[in-house]
Amino acid sequence: MKTALNDDVAAALAKLETRPPSHVFLVACGGSLSIMHPGKYFLDRHSSRLAADVLNSDEFVCRDPRKLDSNALVILCSQTGTTAETVRAASHARGKGSRTIGMTLDPASPLAQGVDATVRYQSHYATGVPIDAADSNYGVLFMLLACLVRLTDGEDRVPAALASLNALQPAIDRAHERYAPLFADFAPRFARKNAIYTMASGACYGAAYSFAICVLMEMLWIHSQAVHADEFFHGPFEIVDREAAFVQLIGLGETRRLDLRARSFLDRFGAPQNILALDARDLDLSGVDEAFQPYLTPLIFFDALWKFAFRLAALRDHVMLDGRRYMKKISDY
Amino acid sequence: MKTALNDDVAAALAKLETRPPSHVFLVACGGSLSIMHPGKYFLDRHSSRLAADVLNSDEFVCRDPRKLDSNALVILCSQTGTTAETVRAASHARGKGSRTIGMTLDPASPLAQGVDATVRYQSHYATGVPIDAADSNYGVLFMLLACLVRLTDGEDRVPAALASLNALQPAIDRAHERYAPLFADFAPRFARKNAIYTMASGACYGAAYSFAICVLMEMLWIHSQAVHADEFFHGPFEIVDREAAFVQLIGLGETRRLDLRARSFLDRFGAPQNILALDARDLDLSGVDEAFQPYLTPLIFFDALWKFAFRLAALRDHVMLDGRRYMKKISDY
Repeated sequence: MKTALNDDVAAALAKLETRPPSHVFLVACGGSLSIMHPGKYFLDRHSSRLAADVLNSDEFVCRDPRKLDSNALVILCSQTGTTAETVRAASHARGKGSRTIGMTLDPASPLAQGVDATVRYQSHYATGVPIDAADSNYGVLFMLLACLVRLTDGEDRVPAALASLNALQPAIDRAHERYAPLFADFAPRFARKNAIYTMASGACYGAAYSFAICVLMEMLWIHSQAVHADEFFHGPFEIVDREAAFVQLIGLGETRRLDLRARSFLDRFGAPQNILALDARDLDLSGVDEAFQPYLTPLIFFDALWKFAFRLAALRDHVMLDGRRYMKKISDY
Repeated sequence: MKTALNDDVAAALAKLETRPPSHVFLVACGGSLSIMHPGKYFLDRHSSRLAADVLNSDEFVCRDPRKLDSNALVILCSQTGTTAETVRAASHARGKGSRTIGMTLDPASPLAQGVDATVRYQSHYATGVPIDAADSNYGVLFMLLACLVRLTDGEDRVPAALASLNALQPAIDRAHERYAPLFADFAPRFARKNAIYTMASGACYGAAYSFAICVLMEMLWIHSQAVHADEFFHGPFEIVDREAAFVQLIGLGETRRLDLRARSFLDRFGAPQNILALDARDLDLSGVDEAFQPYLTPLIFFDALWKFAFRLAALRDHVMLDGRRYMKKISDY
């Protein structure tokens, strides 16, 4: 039961108190980058003091934004703490006089060694050991950001964040149960697709991005793209026919109407058996503060979808996680 | 020959002089949104006063960022000026007390009527009449942004921008000639692909996005995704085999090394006949100011690639521009 902030989150924030930042750069690669999108969404919604950018680590270093100065806070994330681009990004940011917080599993890693403050998290996928989602990268990021908004804007959402994070793992566990029959139904059809799009908007977009690039493309070698639910109507929707496969994340909160509009188009022109729609309204989010529900549903969706991915892998005779051609197999790229 | 700013650009900027903005929202949908990415790249590189966000119009309205207030400038773009989401976004922004500039072909359109200042542009694709690229949406956006940076940061890049825009159309015309044989070679193979990825980084990313969603998906019904050249290594690269098709934009400037790294991976693990790489170093950019070359090459690539798209369409027996199932064919979605 989490009744207080993780110590390292509190320590990281304490360092900012005397001089709060005015700009936040959220910097990582791939799956770690995907969680930064809902992070920015949260800051955009709740802070009138903080501008926020989400950037791939190497893009961040090369782009070298003029706003990267002593008023900036750079939050970086790398599971192993060894992602070369992210370690370089931390060093680049410090060279510009910016404050840095590194999120990682490993406090002895190069990333942890190269930042002003380290925030540890846990990963079920890295270790196979069940964790409390409150201590996932996603969980600690939201602790950090709730504290940051309290510091800069005086709006205290920290108690609601902690209560909500406490209720997160049970909500995820219930989602797994809820979706098991749906995934069993869809997996045989989706396993035969050579392209599966994901679609989302608002706080859920990052989860759709991660499922597209880190799961469908990386682990299953299925063509994909995370389509934004309104951008969908400005090009991508022409791809829709009765065979087109979509995983749609229908979130809560302000952007829900974008998702519902896309859902209704897919209902009309796609085939129901090829549209796997996960609607957050179907989730039992007991204990999650209503204002936090839109921010935490993406993690619930993403965690649930792992089980779907394993089903697809089994049906494609594809050994997930080790079914890679390049990542961790060759090292000189 | 463009020796001065377009009158409406100068007028739009004049309105900001007494109270320059501190945050710029670049807001549009689909192809019009794609040009906003290099716009933000330019601001990130050159302004220490302006934070910038690129947002789909409906996402912008729903997200309703707290930074959207009287200190914000919102630049919107819609070719016809009738895109419902973008017209609503303008109205939403004005309701928050933000200043608004609307870019459109039609000064009588709802967008033009709903903003504080209208900037007209021209489109070859909308009318079939050849234009000077300096007066394209891309051209006028860069005039606006160069003026904005002069206003907020005191760095005068306007003369370089104008000189560069003057040299743009001839550079595009030369690119068409340069790429014709390459496109003729690649078109028969690419026309048979069911998925073609685009890849880019930095200022070129928006052009890759537009080619993926507005051309390959929308007009040719080919699966696609605009992959960022470093994100590529954190998931998408596992899709690469000897059959995988990529259109890669290799830009100039700071992020070029990201493109070259991805290029070298594709050279090694893809098949040369399936990797259509356009390298800005091969372009004759005479007259384009060196500092502006990275910002203008995306438009050159994108314009050149239209010719490739028409070749693909002919080979796929697909009537481009009218080969749509939904857009402008049904209206009640």
